[in-house]
Amino acid sequence: RLIYELLFQIIRKALTEEKQVSTKTSAADLVTETDHFVENLIISVLKEKFPSHRFIAEESTAAGSKCVLTDSPTWIIDPVDGTCNFVHRFPTVAVSIGFAVNKELEFGVIYHCTEERLYTGRRGQGAFCNDKRLQVSKETDISKALILTEIGPKRDPATLKLFLGNIERLLKAQAHGVRVIGSSTLALCHLASGAADAYYQFGLHCWDLAAATVIIREAGGTVIDTSGGPLDLMSCRVVAAGTREMAMFIAQEIETIHYGRDDEN
Amino acid sequence: RLIYELLFQIIRKALTEEKQVSTKTSAADLVTETDHFVENLIISVLKEKFPSHRFIAEESTAAGSKCVLTDSPTWIIDPVDGTCNFVHRFPTVAVSIGFAVNKELEFGVIYHCTEERLYTGRRGQGAFCNDKRLQVSKETDISKALILTEIGPKRDPATLKLFLGNIERLLKAQAHGVRVIGSSTLALCHLASGAADAYYQFGLHCWDLAAATVIIREAGGTVIDTSGGPLDLMSCRVVAAGTREMAMFIAQEIETIHYGRDDEN
Repeated sequence: RLIYELLFQIIRKALTEEKQVSTKTSAADLVTETDHFVENLIISVLKEKFPSHRFIAEESTAAGSKCVLTDSPTWIIDPVDGTCNFVHRFPTVAVSIGFAVNKELEFGVIYHCTEERLYTGRRGQGAFCNDKRLQVSKETDISKALILTEIGPKRDPATLKLFLGNIERLLKAQAHGVRVIGSSTLALCHLASGAADAYYQFGLHCWDLAAATVIIREAGGTVIDTSGGPLDLMSCRVVAAGTREMAMFIAQEIETIHYGRDDEN
Repeated sequence: RLIYELLFQIIRKALTEEKQVSTKTSAADLVTETDHFVENLIISVLKEKFPSHRFIAEESTAAGSKCVLTDSPTWIIDPVDGTCNFVHRFPTVAVSIGFAVNKELEFGVIYHCTEERLYTGRRGQGAFCNDKRLQVSKETDISKALILTEIGPKRDPATLKLFLGNIERLLKAQAHGVRVIGSSTLALCHLASGAADAYYQFGLHCWDLAAATVIIREAGGTVIDTSGGPLDLMSCRVVAAGTREMAMFIAQEIETIHYGRDDEN
């Protein structure tokens, strides 16, 4: 785990420095030199240890690498989740690394860079935060629920209407509250730890979901598609909740925002 | 500062326990036994040291105490800010204590209970987080801004429309993002530390604002009324920003949500 300590130091140091910021798919879709640096570092360390493994990673994909999950052992990496927070030094930033074999998620690791919290999950072996076992909320009643979501990169008027309309529906259904913290992976970690009852989003990516999905499932939670069907890691959308009832309620309540697929872009 | 350590331990312990939750002005306006316990503890300690001082505090006001700021030395207290987070064990919860004399805010202390961060500000003497000097963002351009807000307790359809409409306006003005973390005082502390560029809210109270206002001003920031005029601590509304330009832009952009006044309820 030396690598986490190293990544952690790199990102924490970078948080205090001036940053070169570029945009990707929209003015709100940001990338910094740290995203590239951390991604290259993780991949080079893992490639040396596992030369036959494949990699799906955010910045490599943005640079044109294909984003296809095969049966080969595959590392799915988000070097800096919460890049917009990172750019603003808003202290909610994570590194997320998931691992899949035969298209099945095997384990996930998410590092909260400013609070030194390491979330881990391994299929069949539970989920932990700094060695404390994680357990999701058992809430089934929306009127007692705290819900998390994220805005997503598309900001055209039609997308914003749908995004805000979904929050309106959940608040009208008397959810206790909706939170937007700027990091999908850390929001999903809050869900895994029972600090929130549900999470949904359109416009996130397989590298936001891979590690968190294992962690939530191992904490007893449900991760499904927004249609109510099984999760499709490449579909750019998700509903996760402590209970199946809560996940299904959210899935039925929200309107779809179309973002395409990770493996078709 | 022994009292902070004690408060901190009480709240952290309570975060892990089952809670008796009651509602106040709406189904989303929650209170627990910890709010009452912490408030009574703070007031009893301060009363013993300063028998002639006055107190304005969240739960005493809910119980019928008058909420009027006089020229007398007055402590303005929120025992648990982020009560909804607290109920869900969502780790964004603070204690806020401000102090005013002759209706002028003299100092403020905000304690982030799960991350052990103590924010302090004293008029003319700067603002600090755990002894590190705070400095606001100098951003004036909305298209490079990270904005914070909170939902507020009213959840009727007309209020929700206005609340979501304001977020829509700021995202259409190409703000990098909007965050909702569930604690007004900690959002204001993020602003003071430069991690966000602006904060606005309708429906918060003088105990959410008192300590944070000193801290932000001492970190170089602007705290004004949503009309663009001077802050009125009792008006249940605020715009705060790193720069005056940013604060005025937000004030002009957002539509008013009417919540009445703290000193008229």
